[in-house]
Amino acid sequence: MSEIDVEISEVGPRDGLQNTKQFMPTEAKKAWITAEAAAGVREIEVCSFVPPKLLPQFADANEVVAHALTIPGLAVAALIPNLKGAERAVAAGVHKLSFTISVSRAHSLNNVRKTPDEQLEEFRRIVTFLKTQPENRRAFLSGGLSTVFGCTLEGNIDEREVVRLAVALAEAGADDVSLADTVGYANPAQIKRVFSAVRREIGEKLTSAHLHNTRGLGLANAVAALECGVKTLDSSLGGLGGCPYAPGASGNIVTEDLVFMLEAMGLRTGIDLDKLLAVRRIIEEALPDAELYGNLAVAGLPKGFARIAA
Amino acid sequence: MSEIDVEISEVGPRDGLQNTKQFMPTEAKKAWITAEAAAGVREIEVCSFVPPKLLPQFADANEVVAHALTIPGLAVAALIPNLKGAERAVAAGVHKLSFTISVSRAHSLNNVRKTPDEQLEEFRRIVTFLKTQPENRRAFLSGGLSTVFGCTLEGNIDEREVVRLAVALAEAGADDVSLADTVGYANPAQIKRVFSAVRREIGEKLTSAHLHNTRGLGLANAVAALECGVKTLDSSLGGLGGCPYAPGASGNIVTEDLVFMLEAMGLRTGIDLDKLLAVRRIIEEALPDAELYGNLAVAGLPKGFARIAA
Repeated sequence: MSEIDVEISEVGPRDGLQNTKQFMPTEAKKAWITAEAAAGVREIEVCSFVPPKLLPQFADANEVVAHALTIPGLAVAALIPNLKGAERAVAAGVHKLSFTISVSRAHSLNNVRKTPDEQLEEFRRIVTFLKTQPENRRAFLSGGLSTVFGCTLEGNIDEREVVRLAVALAEAGADDVSLADTVGYANPAQIKRVFSAVRREIGEKLTSAHLHNTRGLGLANAVAALECGVKTLDSSLGGLGGCPYAPGASGNIVTEDLVFMLEAMGLRTGIDLDKLLAVRRIIEEALPDAELYGNLAVAGLPKGFARIAA
Repeated sequence: MSEIDVEISEVGPRDGLQNTKQFMPTEAKKAWITAEAAAGVREIEVCSFVPPKLLPQFADANEVVAHALTIPGLAVAALIPNLKGAERAVAAGVHKLSFTISVSRAHSLNNVRKTPDEQLEEFRRIVTFLKTQPENRRAFLSGGLSTVFGCTLEGNIDEREVVRLAVALAEAGADDVSLADTVGYANPAQIKRVFSAVRREIGEKLTSAHLHNTRGLGLANAVAALECGVKTLDSSLGGLGGCPYAPGASGNIVTEDLVFMLEAMGLRTGIDLDKLLAVRRIIEEALPDAELYGNLAVAGLPKGFARIAA
C-alpha cells in the first residue's frame, strides 16, 4: 500500500446532499461511495444522523452505512448532531463520528437552538456515552468547529473564542479537532493565523480543515492549512451542494480539483484522478438538477501529467 | 495617496479580448478602462499591437491607447509581438511594452514562427530601438516568458531553459521580467520552485506573475508567487477570454476574486471592490455572448468585510 501525504475525506454524500433538495436514491449513494472508494478515497462521510423529518435526504442512513461498511479499508464517517445521533451512528457501526460546534453564537442558536457552550455540554455527553462502548471497537470522535473564519449572521468571529472552544473540545476528549470555513469567508493569511494559534494550544490534535470555495479561495486556503500541519482535508465531489446562502456559488472545495493540485505538488493522496473524475457521472445521472462544480472536469489533466497508478 | 502592497495589472482588454470572438466596440473598451481606473487599478494592458488583419479585435489600438493616456495616473501597457509592434506602440505613446518569449519551442514556432532564441534576437532589436528614444520619456520594457509551467503541445517544460531565458532577457535589457502560466498547468509548489530559481539569478528584476485559473489553482498560485517576492499580478476582469484550448474553462485569474483575496489578507491594492465589481456590467452589455467568471460576483462580499475607501 502506498504512503499518503494528505488524507482526503470526501464529505459530498453528507455535506453535499445536505444542501441538495432532490433526494438521491439509496442505490446511487451506494454506487457513489463504492466508486469513490475504488478511486482510492479512504474516508467518506456517508450521511448525517439527524432526525429524518428534519433532513429527509438521510432517511436511508442505516442502509448507506451498512453498505459502506462492506468496502474493505474504507473509514466510514458520519455527522452526528447530538447524543441521540451518536447512539444511532454507533448502533449502525460508523467508524468516525463528527460533531460540530458553531463558534458563532447566532449561527449556533439558529442552527441547533443551543449556545456554543451548550453544544460543548452535548459533546461531553457523547464522550461519556462512547466510554460505555468496548474500547477495542470504540468509534473515533472528531470535534469540529464551524463558522471559524466568519459567519453570515455575525460577520467577523473572535479568534480567541475559536482557540477557547478548540481547547475545550480537546480537553473534553475529542480524538481530533477540525476547523471549518462554513460559509467561505476565509483567506490564506487568516487560515495560517488561526490554525497556528489553535495548534500552539492543542498541537497535533488539530488535524483537519473543512474549507469552502464560495469566493474562489478554497484551494489557496487548503495550501495555507497544509503549511500549518493539517493532514486531512474535507472536500466534496463536484463541489456538490453549493452554498445555501448564495445561489450559484460553490460550496465545499471540489475533490477532483483538490486532488489534482495535491498530486501536481507531489503530495500523495493515493487517489486515481481518472477514476475520480468518472464518479461525477453517477451524481449527474442521479441528480440531473444539481449543479456540479470543478475546473479539472472541464479543462482536463495537463499534457504530460503523471497519473497515479491505482 | 495610499500605499500599495501588490500591484494589479489588468490585462482583460488585451488578453481577455484576444480570446473573445466578438469585437468589443471601441467606446465600450474606453468605458471599461475608465471605470476600472476609477476603481483604483493603476496599470491596464489596453491592447496588443499585432497586425489588425491577424487580430481584428485590436484594429482600434491607437484610439484606445489615446483614450487611456488621458486618464491621470494610469500606466498604459500594451503587448508587442515584435519590433514593428514596438514602433507602433511607442508612436502611440504607450508607457509599458510587454514582449513575450514562449519557453516551449513548439508553442513558439506555432505562435510566432520563431524559436525562443530567435524571439530573444527580436527582443534585442526592440531594446536597441528604444535606446533611440529620448531617455526621459523612454517606454518601460517588460520581458515575459510564457508556457513557463507547461505547454499543451510539449507538456512539461525544462526549468533550466526557463532560467536561461529569464537571465537572457534581463541581460539583454529588460526593465523587468515576468513569468506566465499560459495554459493553467502550474501548481503552488512548482510556482515556488521556479520563481525562486529565477530570482536567485536575476533578483528583483523578477517582479511579475501572469497566472491562469484553467484548473482552479490560479489564486493558490498567486499566493505562492507573492511568497517568492512577486509584486505585480496580472489578472482579467471577469476572467474574460476563457481558455482557447478548453471551451468552458476559465482563462486569466479573475481580477475581482484576486483583489478580494489580497485585501482580505491585509495586502493593499488601492482598489475599491464595489466599483470593481460594477465594471462587469460594461463587459456584459458590450459582449452579451462572452462568458464571465468569478466567485465574488456570485457570492458577494462577506458580512463585516471592510471595504476600501476609494
